[in-house]
Amino acid sequence: MNIEKIIIAGPVYQEMKNSIANSGVNKHFRFLSEKEVTWEDFNWADAYVGFRPTSNFHFGHLKWVHSIGAGVDGFLFNRKWDKDVLLTRTITSFGRRISEYCLSYILMDIQYHDTFKQQQSIKKWKTIEPKLVSEHKVVVFGTGEIGQELAKILSSLGVDVYGVSRSGTQKQYFHKVIKSEKADQLLSQCDWVINTLPLTVYTEKMFNEDLFNCLHNACFINVGRGASVDEKALIKALDNRNLRLAVLDVFKNEPLPQDSGLWERPGVIITPHIAALTTANEAVDCFLQTLEQIERGNVSVKNIVNIEQGY
Amino acid sequence: MNIEKIIIAGPVYQEMKNSIANSGVNKHFRFLSEKEVTWEDFNWADAYVGFRPTSNFHFGHLKWVHSIGAGVDGFLFNRKWDKDVLLTRTITSFGRRISEYCLSYILMDIQYHDTFKQQQSIKKWKTIEPKLVSEHKVVVFGTGEIGQELAKILSSLGVDVYGVSRSGTQKQYFHKVIKSEKADQLLSQCDWVINTLPLTVYTEKMFNEDLFNCLHNACFINVGRGASVDEKALIKALDNRNLRLAVLDVFKNEPLPQDSGLWERPGVIITPHIAALTTANEAVDCFLQTLEQIERGNVSVKNIVNIEQGY
Repeated sequence: MNIEKIIIAGPVYQEMKNSIANSGVNKHFRFLSEKEVTWEDFNWADAYVGFRPTSNFHFGHLKWVHSIGAGVDGFLFNRKWDKDVLLTRTITSFGRRISEYCLSYILMDIQYHDTFKQQQSIKKWKTIEPKLVSEHKVVVFGTGEIGQELAKILSSLGVDVYGVSRSGTQKQYFHKVIKSEKADQLLSQCDWVINTLPLTVYTEKMFNEDLFNCLHNACFINVGRGASVDEKALIKALDNRNLRLAVLDVFKNEPLPQDSGLWERPGVIITPHIAALTTANEAVDCFLQTLEQIERGNVSVKNIVNIEQGY
Repeated sequence: MNIEKIIIAGPVYQEMKNSIANSGVNKHFRFLSEKEVTWEDFNWADAYVGFRPTSNFHFGHLKWVHSIGAGVDGFLFNRKWDKDVLLTRTITSFGRRISEYCLSYILMDIQYHDTFKQQQSIKKWKTIEPKLVSEHKVVVFGTGEIGQELAKILSSLGVDVYGVSRSGTQKQYFHKVIKSEKADQLLSQCDWVINTLPLTVYTEKMFNEDLFNCLHNACFINVGRGASVDEKALIKALDNRNLRLAVLDVFKNEPLPQDSGLWERPGVIITPHIAALTTANEAVDCFLQTLEQIERGNVSVKNIVNIEQGY
């Protein structure tokens, strides 16, 4: 595939412009904010690179679309895709970043950071025994690249990590992988549930009342997509003590609206979609590698999106 | 060595009584709080088991003293020891516990837990990019059992871990081990300094003005002993930005006195000596194993204290 004209759009287009200028790659670029991209740009370009489609996105003469993020639901979920257009996504240190995010909140909880902080504020010296991370059972939804890196790091600390996936195919680093429809019993015994799944028709509202009802005083971390969670069911699960703690990095609407009840809800920790940021440098590296592979005619690039599956 | 009469003293003597009763070991025991132990008890007993000497401690007919904690400075520091009396210490999951304590505070810092909590409290959605733990350089003082376990866990996450010890002997899991008198340059480039050292004449006030002056906006974790730190120098280091954060689990006087300035000092996190607690069950397990080894005449038990070295 021959790619000559490329739109680079989105919040980090300026930083990407500088990096690409330094790389010496010889193509025609238009570096634009999402708002600046016109209908004509899509007719001009061979390729579009961005976090999501612009509001006026159309396929025009595009042959290739490259997502700067790992999640491509912005391009595919509830949208029609032109199957002649190649869709690729960025793969960088997401797995590592998400793993450290999750581990930080698990350790925060079992090391009683909040309790000790509160005790310090009133000069109270009272022993509470931290638990070891290996005393916990963790269930990870999603056994792809990100889920596997998470399982690798947690299992290296002695944690029993169970995976849940559509196929139930066994994967390295997981104690066991189970099909999603058979996860009930597993969930009833687990301490932490972590969602790493992409948003697809199968994962929309997957974390609903039925699922939360299986839990007993568990903790939930969402580093997948906000729309995979039924927010009302989440609140109810906190009310009913199915959930003790929810650590949420992603939301159906982002930024999380000011009137959302989640902001002030006890037992909810909110972070602004930072568990797996793509830095401009990482985005450029992955974009240039993918470009090179596509031009070499090597269509088996690791980061090609399966349009049917949606990830 | 024949041990028949044993004093079990200290805060967990009741729990230890229950565990030992269940173990079926056939000895004469006196289970006592520290205050209840009399002069006569020491003349009666072959062995004393406790966290520290009682205030009326004397060697009497003791042949063996077993410390329930890993640190034996309570028995040896600024005291005379009868060299005919065997001193052993508890070795359990201390290394693992201390490692998870340290990792929890490193991750808390680099994942900006406090900043995101503050943002949540005012419903602010602002991206800040967490760093990866592998971008940090950590210096661990003490390359013994605890320091090595800490180096093992941090290095498995990609951290460059440097060790500092009296001898400078290279040890597994450390990128490099350096003699304490040569640590200056290393300290000037590090992000985290962690003290795991026992209290001895060599480590008393080791973390003094000279040492802190080498640091540039670094973080300090003390999971060794409080008396290894010059508290005035620590405060000065925070004032001067040699230190950005001090996470302190141990103090010269414990519980930390109400009038200590550390309680309210910004940049100081205080926990009540919980990084490496001995549970009653772990204490009993280690005590019984040591007892068995001593009775078998196997004096090469792993947990024998070198009285000269003080650990």
